[in-house]
Amino acid sequence: MTQTKPLHDVISLVEDPLDRLNKELLEDLAPGHPEMRPLIEHVGGFRGKQLRPVLTFLSAMAIRGAEHSGGIGHDVITVAKVVELLHTATLVHDDVLDSASVRRRIETINHLSGVETAVLLGDYIYAKAFHMAVQLQDPAAARWLAETVRVICQGEITQILHRFDYQWSEDRYFTVIAEKTASLYAAACRLGGRYASNEAEQASEGRLRALEEYGLELGIAFQIVDDCLDLDGDEAVVGKSLGTDLSKGKITLPMLYLLRDEGQAKRFQTLLGTSEAEGLRRLRAEFPLEHAIAYAMEEAQRRIAKAQACLSQLPPGPARAALDKLAGFVLTRRV
Amino acid sequence: MTQTKPLHDVISLVEDPLDRLNKELLEDLAPGHPEMRPLIEHVGGFRGKQLRPVLTFLSAMAIRGAEHSGGIGHDVITVAKVVELLHTATLVHDDVLDSASVRRRIETINHLSGVETAVLLGDYIYAKAFHMAVQLQDPAAARWLAETVRVICQGEITQILHRFDYQWSEDRYFTVIAEKTASLYAAACRLGGRYASNEAEQASEGRLRALEEYGLELGIAFQIVDDCLDLDGDEAVVGKSLGTDLSKGKITLPMLYLLRDEGQAKRFQTLLGTSEAEGLRRLRAEFPLEHAIAYAMEEAQRRIAKAQACLSQLPPGPARAALDKLAGFVLTRRV
Repeated sequence: MTQTKPLHDVISLVEDPLDRLNKELLEDLAPGHPEMRPLIEHVGGFRGKQLRPVLTFLSAMAIRGAEHSGGIGHDVITVAKVVELLHTATLVHDDVLDSASVRRRIETINHLSGVETAVLLGDYIYAKAFHMAVQLQDPAAARWLAETVRVICQGEITQILHRFDYQWSEDRYFTVIAEKTASLYAAACRLGGRYASNEAEQASEGRLRALEEYGLELGIAFQIVDDCLDLDGDEAVVGKSLGTDLSKGKITLPMLYLLRDEGQAKRFQTLLGTSEAEGLRRLRAEFPLEHAIAYAMEEAQRRIAKAQACLSQLPPGPARAALDKLAGFVLTRRV
Repeated sequence: MTQTKPLHDVISLVEDPLDRLNKELLEDLAPGHPEMRPLIEHVGGFRGKQLRPVLTFLSAMAIRGAEHSGGIGHDVITVAKVVELLHTATLVHDDVLDSASVRRRIETINHLSGVETAVLLGDYIYAKAFHMAVQLQDPAAARWLAETVRVICQGEITQILHRFDYQWSEDRYFTVIAEKTASLYAAACRLGGRYASNEAEQASEGRLRALEEYGLELGIAFQIVDDCLDLDGDEAVVGKSLGTDLSKGKITLPMLYLLRDEGQAKRFQTLLGTSEAEGLRRLRAEFPLEHAIAYAMEEAQRRIAKAQACLSQLPPGPARAALDKLAGFVLTRRV
């Protein structure tokens, strides 16, 4: 409760465009064939904090120092919808990759309708998102977002190719999470700023870069926290099964800390590939997990500080303040 | 040999742009991370007859009555590359859906590197294709192709939702194969025509519609023949495992013929869902398969005749003649 309150304040600032987005998305996705409707409606249930469209709206306001969301136009709504759909498509495919059966306490598409439907539904949502992006007069968003999806996939594939790779370095870890996670946050922020201005008052590249950097650092911190929660979170609170990185051999920042010590590294390697429960039990019993988490969270804090510093390049106002608050929230979330 | 000869004549007409396409595709797909290179190169091995880019090039020539491929410009090459990449992405995902281990006599990505890599690599190729499409000055191709991919997925999902559905009608079968297969042929032809003309000499909508219709009917016929080959083809010639429609409960046109007779329908239903080998053996032994195939092939012939009739709206010349020949080839292919 105390954790969601600050986020509630932030979101209330963009409640109107967010309502509009959610109403429009339902109609936009209405399929040509009625048989597909239950699938589309089910995917709607995955809706979470909607951080990415919130970032797009706040960025659109912040770049102009707007006091309220009234000036957010059709193009910014479209960009936010595309970003949210691309994120949804990645979730549907992620659940296939992880053979996950539950997402946000409801059944995944692969569990409900099989892997085949889930792969195709993800493709369907990607195609719908790109189709929406190319309706915009200005092709910048379509270009940026197509490249972003390519980069997301590149990051995910690289991670898979390096499972159980104990030579994995921190640099490569940061590259991969920047690609697979933070790139979409960066795009959400940059494109929010980009489409906020009409042609007469083109946003300066400096401010767009600041928003992009903010999104990138925020996204990196978000993924680090996610990777920590997978090891020390409370399954009942997080709402998904934990320990999956261990069982899948995905090496994350807290693990890299444990791998630094040579003797410890040898023992740690025997954890990877075991079941989630066994891996977590042994990790918590036999390793200095608290130190590893503290080490990773320090990095997350540095990233958030960098994100917040970027905001100084934007005019002050409630949206800039909200972006600052939102960054802080990333560090305290347990969900 | 006698079967591929006519196609060889057709292809030689567009050999130069096809060479250019294949050279450029290799470079375009070169990934940011060297680790991905073997995957990308492996996918290159799936290259088949490249019917879709051939159609794009021939359409670009035919709409202007061009004698040779010399006038095919950068935009048409780009459209052809995007169409080929989108097709490649659907193949990579199709192999995941079918749990196929071999495609064109080489290992599928899911067999070589796992389902996760195959899902992500398909997404990667889709994203790359869309990114390429939005580089075109004229957004028509990006819009048309994003919508086409949505329609392809819609067709595939509808087919999956109706597996083992013995109430499946011919109309619905035709709708689904138009969506999942023919829509990309139609796009390949229409967009070839569309991007052949510079702005000064915009192609008439009538000719573009003729090319689109030609592609649509050709694609429908192609899928009908594919569905026949799955039941009566020679595995060694076709180069992939057959009988998969039976085992997966996908009801195709020759099966719909057998389902017309009520007594026969009851017996036929016991075939679906059995192993490929068992299903094919019983189908060939206990049912009038020849009649069913003849019935379906008559429909394919009607579609090809319709496709060829569309060509009368285009100026005569070698490209129009090649499109006519290519349509005929669809009926005789055994591969």
